[in-house]
Amino acid sequence: MQITREKWSKNFSEWFDWVLREGEFYDYGRYPVKGMGVWMPYGFKLRQNIISIIRNLLDSTGHEEVLFPLLIPEDLLSRESTHIKGFEEEVFWVTKGGSEDLDVKLALRPTSEVAITTMENLWLKSYKQLPKKYYQIVSVFRYETKATRPMIRLREITTFKEAHTVHETYDDAQRQVEEAIEIYKKIFNNLTIPYVLSERPEWDRFAGALHTYAFDTIMPDGKVMQIGTVHHLGQNFSRALDFKIQKKDGSLDYPHQTSYGISDRAIASVIAIHGDDHGPILPPSVAPIKVVVVPIPAKNEEGTQQVMKYSIEICEMLNKNNITCVTDQDTEKTPGEKFYIWEIKGVPIRLEIGPRELASSTVFIKRRDNLKSYTVKKEEVVNKVKEVLNEIQEDLRKRAWESLKSRIEYANDIEKAKNILENNSGIVEVPWCGSKECGLKIEELTNARVLGYPIEDRKVNDKCVICKMNAKTVLRVAKTY
Amino acid sequence: MQITREKWSKNFSEWFDWVLREGEFYDYGRYPVKGMGVWMPYGFKLRQNIISIIRNLLDSTGHEEVLFPLLIPEDLLSRESTHIKGFEEEVFWVTKGGSEDLDVKLALRPTSEVAITTMENLWLKSYKQLPKKYYQIVSVFRYETKATRPMIRLREITTFKEAHTVHETYDDAQRQVEEAIEIYKKIFNNLTIPYVLSERPEWDRFAGALHTYAFDTIMPDGKVMQIGTVHHLGQNFSRALDFKIQKKDGSLDYPHQTSYGISDRAIASVIAIHGDDHGPILPPSVAPIKVVVVPIPAKNEEGTQQVMKYSIEICEMLNKNNITCVTDQDTEKTPGEKFYIWEIKGVPIRLEIGPRELASSTVFIKRRDNLKSYTVKKEEVVNKVKEVLNEIQEDLRKRAWESLKSRIEYANDIEKAKNILENNSGIVEVPWCGSKECGLKIEELTNARVLGYPIEDRKVNDKCVICKMNAKTVLRVAKTY
Repeated sequence: MQITREKWSKNFSEWFDWVLREGEFYDYGRYPVKGMGVWMPYGFKLRQNIISIIRNLLDSTGHEEVLFPLLIPEDLLSRESTHIKGFEEEVFWVTKGGSEDLDVKLALRPTSEVAITTMENLWLKSYKQLPKKYYQIVSVFRYETKATRPMIRLREITTFKEAHTVHETYDDAQRQVEEAIEIYKKIFNNLTIPYVLSERPEWDRFAGALHTYAFDTIMPDGKVMQIGTVHHLGQNFSRALDFKIQKKDGSLDYPHQTSYGISDRAIASVIAIHGDDHGPILPPSVAPIKVVVVPIPAKNEEGTQQVMKYSIEICEMLNKNNITCVTDQDTEKTPGEKFYIWEIKGVPIRLEIGPRELASSTVFIKRRDNLKSYTVKKEEVVNKVKEVLNEIQEDLRKRAWESLKSRIEYANDIEKAKNILENNSGIVEVPWCGSKECGLKIEELTNARVLGYPIEDRKVNDKCVICKMNAKTVLRVAKTY
Repeated sequence: MQITREKWSKNFSEWFDWVLREGEFYDYGRYPVKGMGVWMPYGFKLRQNIISIIRNLLDSTGHEEVLFPLLIPEDLLSRESTHIKGFEEEVFWVTKGGSEDLDVKLALRPTSEVAITTMENLWLKSYKQLPKKYYQIVSVFRYETKATRPMIRLREITTFKEAHTVHETYDDAQRQVEEAIEIYKKIFNNLTIPYVLSERPEWDRFAGALHTYAFDTIMPDGKVMQIGTVHHLGQNFSRALDFKIQKKDGSLDYPHQTSYGISDRAIASVIAIHGDDHGPILPPSVAPIKVVVVPIPAKNEEGTQQVMKYSIEICEMLNKNNITCVTDQDTEKTPGEKFYIWEIKGVPIRLEIGPRELASSTVFIKRRDNLKSYTVKKEEVVNKVKEVLNEIQEDLRKRAWESLKSRIEYANDIEKAKNILENNSGIVEVPWCGSKECGLKIEELTNARVLGYPIEDRKVNDKCVICKMNAKTVLRVAKTY
């Protein structure tokens, strides 16, 4: 076996569909509602592991998990005018209960700002209760008219982690935005997903937000995917819902809010980003199975049984040390067939155990990511596997970051930018004066989408690619999902 | 403080509403959609702990967790004719996406038999893959026309654990029914919820099932609540969805299925059953906070600060030993006010720590359930608290079982049965010949609901209360939720 990345990069969509179904992550396109897939047991475990990482980081920073109803009445969803404009064309509406028409149409939540603010208005009265940080992990629904894609563009997004916070002041909400960004960096770091953080331009903010900050990553085909967003909502929603709190100075005022979300796309990127033509390579931090043992049959039945016994013993040793291990005990498949199956599932380490290993009390360890192998004594297996898992985790992250960085290019000429995007995709940074007019022109001329600009100051000794005025920063442009 | 159970038993509805809101479990009746409530942070943790118990028991018995879409197309939901008849009047329908009318109406899942069988039909081909056991924990929706009640009768049931299994033979499905019953017994035992297990009569089966077995418990007001059901579906759904598997003998046939569910009602019963007029008493197995420390102020500020320091030290000791403890550090409330708050939250143990405890390096331990108290040396606190938590767990279970058993009465006369139900509620067992006609007559004459009959043989030396033929078993009758 050699590492190739042809299918993975050139036909990423097919590769991804193949991995999701054959790897038994997610069955998509066969359930009889468009844009809605089924989490299969193996994929569900990966999803749970990723959710655990998110939960732990949110819980340890004072976020409290809640669960709000799915349905939002039309009149409530319409309270914040920019918000409803942004969502009204993509909301699923419940209009009937049994054979009766409902008095008020009910939206399947596209996001929960108005639902949560409604209850915050009952729960929170004083600055003493602030800052308050809630989150929930739920399905949200979008009546997507664009082509749907498994985990990436869905009508039911099943793993929407949405956090909603309340603050006495604008500045404290801004501090929360920064905290959220740090939390998201930790989450993506733990998931080994590299990212580019940008402030979205004013024409691409979340509907109802003052500022939107977004994490984007680059997928194997070079297209950019948004994997997390953080919004400063200011007083837009509290004002629309007449939600006031008593401030420290005794006055009543609308509190400031933020919201931030991560979705199934985080899971999609974990599966996609470290792949090769044999399948995905799951980071050990979230892999449902960290080690698979494939017994290699001996020449006779007795030998084969001894190999199996030894394989199971090794696997149990690993499990006892909290390294999730499975022995493939199927007696009908060849080792080669088993390798194939576990590769599509992205298991990071394979142990091959045959008569030779049995005879010498050793184990053959194969790294899935770079195909390096090691033969170690039985008593060294646990430590070696731990060490290799750590190395894989670090190497996956490192390689992914290098790949991402290599796909960000600078172009001080709009034609050059357009060419890069058409030939190599990735992200192009162009010098920009900061005006909306020039920004929209850049989108138009590159036939791509503006991601935004860096949140840190960026000195650019160049002229805006459109108006030729002095550039204030760079604008990032990409072909996006 | 004395233990009284007036409000709790006589005005249970008010008691329950008060506990849910004041204890910050679940905000109900204020979210602007009827029959849908909000899980608040504290209630959400209780819910998570209960879900963990359910998950662990299912995972350890070979059940695999999955996640299916919320929406089921009308034509799919209608495939099994009894099933759709049972549900059609209580389904919420999505009919619009944005401003467009959908081609096919989409149901918010009332339950997932047809959705899951659809995919099983793609995934399962051979007896070698069986038995197969899937489950998911999701929201289900019922357009209830009866009066809704928090956690008990909802339009969005947010914690529906539904298991779905597939078997080669009828008998293996029956074996699964028995396994499911054993699992549910363990779950309710762990939750300290007593139950009565009955086979539901043919006129009250799950829509589409051959047999329905149900767990019922008796609530503080004497009314009976269904808390879990197990269904033998036979080949009804596999036939309706043309789902065949290859059997061991090579033939193709419809597999046999079971399904079983537990809902928010399990959580409601945990909160309700062990209560008194001061609030609920949560079993330590699921209590989000097992111990609360209430510092008792000293006569001077310095002493009060030392007490606080000592309180925090004790609490940390407990947390380090995996006993979730919180110190109430509020400086504005009196100890009495704090007692009140933590009682409504159902925390099973309270530690009172004041100048006396500080001076003597002791801790005052108060059991919430029977108000017994103990003063122990600091170094004995961890062990004593562990011991007391175990005792509370056992005592709650025991008392609840005794209470349940005391509320099951036998009556061989229909008037007597009716009187018991009208005056004391609970469950009445009446001798029954086994005929549907007599069963329905019993319901009519007692103005109550038939729960069913024991699953084990029950010798009854009596005549059917209606037809006076020899009774074959007893029929259980109750006022129900």
